[in-house]
Amino acid sequence: MTLFSKIIRREIPAKIIHEDEHCLAFHDIAPQAPQHVLVIPKKEIRSMAEARPEDQALLGHLMLTASKLARDMGVDEEGYRIVVNTNRAAGQTVFHLHLHLLAGRDLNWPPG
Amino acid sequence: MTLFSKIIRREIPAKIIHEDEHCLAFHDIAPQAPQHVLVIPKKEIRSMAEARPEDQALLGHLMLTASKLARDMGVDEEGYRIVVNTNRAAGQTVFHLHLHLLAGRDLNWPPG
Repeated sequence: MTLFSKIIRREIPAKIIHEDEHCLAFHDIAPQAPQHVLVIPKKEIRSMAEARPEDQALLGHLMLTASKLARDMGVDEEGYRIVVNTNRAAGQTVFHLHLHLLAGRDLNWPPG
Repeated sequence: MTLFSKIIRREIPAKIIHEDEHCLAFHDIAPQAPQHVLVIPKKEIRSMAEARPEDQALLGHLMLTASKLARDMGVDEEGYRIVVNTNRAAGQTVFHLHLHLLAGRDLNWPPG
C-alpha cells in the first residue's frame, strides 16, 4: 500500500480539493507550479503500464476531473498541463497512478 | 480545421504508427525525446478545456492507446511520460486535443 492509499483512507493528511466515488484530488506536497494538484483513482493501479481495458472509463474520468478542477480553479483559459509519469525514466516515485495538473505559470518545452 | 485533421484525412503526411476507429498516433515532427509520439482523437476537440462528459470513453481510450503504444515500443518497463497541454500557458500550439508520449531518455522534473 502506498502513501496515496493512506491519503484516500485519511490515515495521513493532504489538502484534498475533490473527492467522488472513483477518485480523489489533492495538492502536491512539492508543488512545481503555483497550482499543482494530483488526481488519483481510488482503485490501486500502479501506473499506466498496469492500466487495463476495463480501466477505460476510470481513466477518462480522471482526465475529465482534471479539466473540471482546472476550470474550478480558474486556470483553464490561461492554460494548464496534465502529466502522467510511468516508471523510472519518467521519475515516477509513488506507484499508485496519478495525474499531475500544473498551472499558474508558463510551462516550458520540453516537458522535462 | 487544424493540421491534425489534415493528417487524419491523409492530406498531409505523417509517420503514422497506429490507427483505429477513434484515434490516430504518429511521430511528433519536433521530437523532444528519442521516442515522441502524439495520440489524437479523430473527433475534433480543441483541448481538454473543451472535453465534455460524453468524451469520457474517448479520453480513456486515448490514455490506454498511449500505454499500449509504449508497451509495443518496448519502453514501458524503463518508463515514459504522457503530457497534455491546454491553452497558452502550457504551450499548446495545435488546437486539436493531443497526448504527447515521450520516452527513451530520463525525463526531468519539473515537467517544463
